[in-house]
Amino acid sequence: MILAIDIGGTKLAAGLVSDDGALVTSRRVATPQSGDAEDLWTALTDLIEPLAAGVDGVGVGCGGPMVWPSGEVSPLNIPAWRGFPVRSRLQALFPGLPVRLHNDAICVAAAEHWRGAGQGSANMLGMVVSTGVGGGLILGDRLIDGGTGNAGHIGHVIVEPGGVPCGCGGRGCLEAVARGPGLVEWALAHGWTPGERTSSEARPYREDREVTARDLAADARAGDAVATAAMRRAGRALGIAIASATHLCDLDVVTIGGGLAQTGDLLFDPLEEALREHARMDFAKRVKVVPAALGQDAGLVGGAALILAEERYWLGHPPVGVERR
Amino acid sequence: MILAIDIGGTKLAAGLVSDDGALVTSRRVATPQSGDAEDLWTALTDLIEPLAAGVDGVGVGCGGPMVWPSGEVSPLNIPAWRGFPVRSRLQALFPGLPVRLHNDAICVAAAEHWRGAGQGSANMLGMVVSTGVGGGLILGDRLIDGGTGNAGHIGHVIVEPGGVPCGCGGRGCLEAVARGPGLVEWALAHGWTPGERTSSEARPYREDREVTARDLAADARAGDAVATAAMRRAGRALGIAIASATHLCDLDVVTIGGGLAQTGDLLFDPLEEALREHARMDFAKRVKVVPAALGQDAGLVGGAALILAEERYWLGHPPVGVERR
Repeated sequence: MILAIDIGGTKLAAGLVSDDGALVTSRRVATPQSGDAEDLWTALTDLIEPLAAGVDGVGVGCGGPMVWPSGEVSPLNIPAWRGFPVRSRLQALFPGLPVRLHNDAICVAAAEHWRGAGQGSANMLGMVVSTGVGGGLILGDRLIDGGTGNAGHIGHVIVEPGGVPCGCGGRGCLEAVARGPGLVEWALAHGWTPGERTSSEARPYREDREVTARDLAADARAGDAVATAAMRRAGRALGIAIASATHLCDLDVVTIGGGLAQTGDLLFDPLEEALREHARMDFAKRVKVVPAALGQDAGLVGGAALILAEERYWLGHPPVGVERR
Repeated sequence: MILAIDIGGTKLAAGLVSDDGALVTSRRVATPQSGDAEDLWTALTDLIEPLAAGVDGVGVGCGGPMVWPSGEVSPLNIPAWRGFPVRSRLQALFPGLPVRLHNDAICVAAAEHWRGAGQGSANMLGMVVSTGVGGGLILGDRLIDGGTGNAGHIGHVIVEPGGVPCGCGGRGCLEAVARGPGLVEWALAHGWTPGERTSSEARPYREDREVTARDLAADARAGDAVATAAMRRAGRALGIAIASATHLCDLDVVTIGGGLAQTGDLLFDPLEEALREHARMDFAKRVKVVPAALGQDAGLVGGAALILAEERYWLGHPPVGVERR
């Protein structure tokens, strides 16, 4: 049994994953927002404590950036941790056991490949489209780490050269265009009035909370022209980036998870349209884009995969963790 | 000793490569243009005949597309061969020996990684910028084949969504912008008068032959504004595609060979400018773009690498060649 941990800006999750990749039990807690590194560490150890007895290893997904594989993390959405040595701190709690860590989007991709929508494909890009756009790359049936553990950054493939500024410091990245808050910003700037079309919908806009891409999708579904254009712009940007990735990596399958992926055809139709316009060679026409299968559990399953399927997902770098203590 | 073969639209080359990757001897002949498949095959067998005695294997680079790894080739620039089974035909000439074949740009990338400018890097993109823009990808110290042997198609990473039509059927691909003939076409359409600035240069424009990117580069070097803008446009497109590839694959090194790469700073300066504007995250800033080191011999050295360094360059697909006869 593997203890799997998923560390994000909004929630901390932990669970037990059996050898065949099933999530047996899991717990969640809101990520403390005090800004104190040790507060967060305490919340994490409290969360895992009831699960820790008798496990055979610990697999962790965490928001980036991080120094990898040594595991000093500085997650963009967790200001409390800057260079926090989460891997070695966990290693000290589990002496003699393998403790492994990777980017959370890479864990999701590994999970979708191992037990989700990418099963049976040797060449896969696993994407998460949400407040950010992340991913992980499996080629030749192995997780691709790249030189520093950062392969899979599909969110920073350029889809609008000279376009909108991106949080990374560049311009025109997929993430700048297709991340949820980016869509909302674009739609508001183009005259979208949230909730105008959806007052009687299942999830109406309420003035007492922040507008999200979910509101935008609801308005698009209700026929709002600007909201529809915003979804279309994001979908097309995704299709163009996927065409580029398919040409470069000769992919079989792309899985798409995360909140925005749940908007369905609003995103997938323009995605497919742009992808098929740009991916014309026979080998590229093969690529299939499918919704991710594992939902919220993917991060935990993927963390466990770093240990339970190490021959595919933990390779190609100097020995670390228990091997190096 | 390995017999290496490089099959292109303009020339056929063959050579002997020693176990340490040195090209010991080589021969070249113009590719027959009769359009007859067997004429071309005869030219190839005549070329290799004096080199064939006592070799330990045969490694071949050939223009794509092809069915891979079985090796039925339909090179874009060799109309005489459509679905020509060059691998099995060679296998029949060399019974019991390994005969392996890959895309010519992939062979160049393997060569630069094995014995050229990418040595010591585990994560490399090897590019050829010439009448086309091709490439090969090495990640985790292994050649990436992709699902059908077509990984490395950097020429079809999209740099101008909705831009100029590409020979692949798509739009705005790097190759459509940065291939030599594409540059020439763009410059002529924007008012370039070939040779106006270079009548006294080493390689003046002559009216009795076709204008090439070499003429364009000479005029750019002589200060022609349109020619300079054309080179800059190509260089920037290269930089943007390399930024996308670096983000997706966490590359250490990109090597650039081919005729256009020989224009030096005319191409490399705008390339670096655009790359550094778009690759802002720490892991991406690491990437180095360097000229290829092996020149014309790279295709032959890379063909041999498919056999001599098979643990890195011939992997991840069902056994083929001698193993399957």
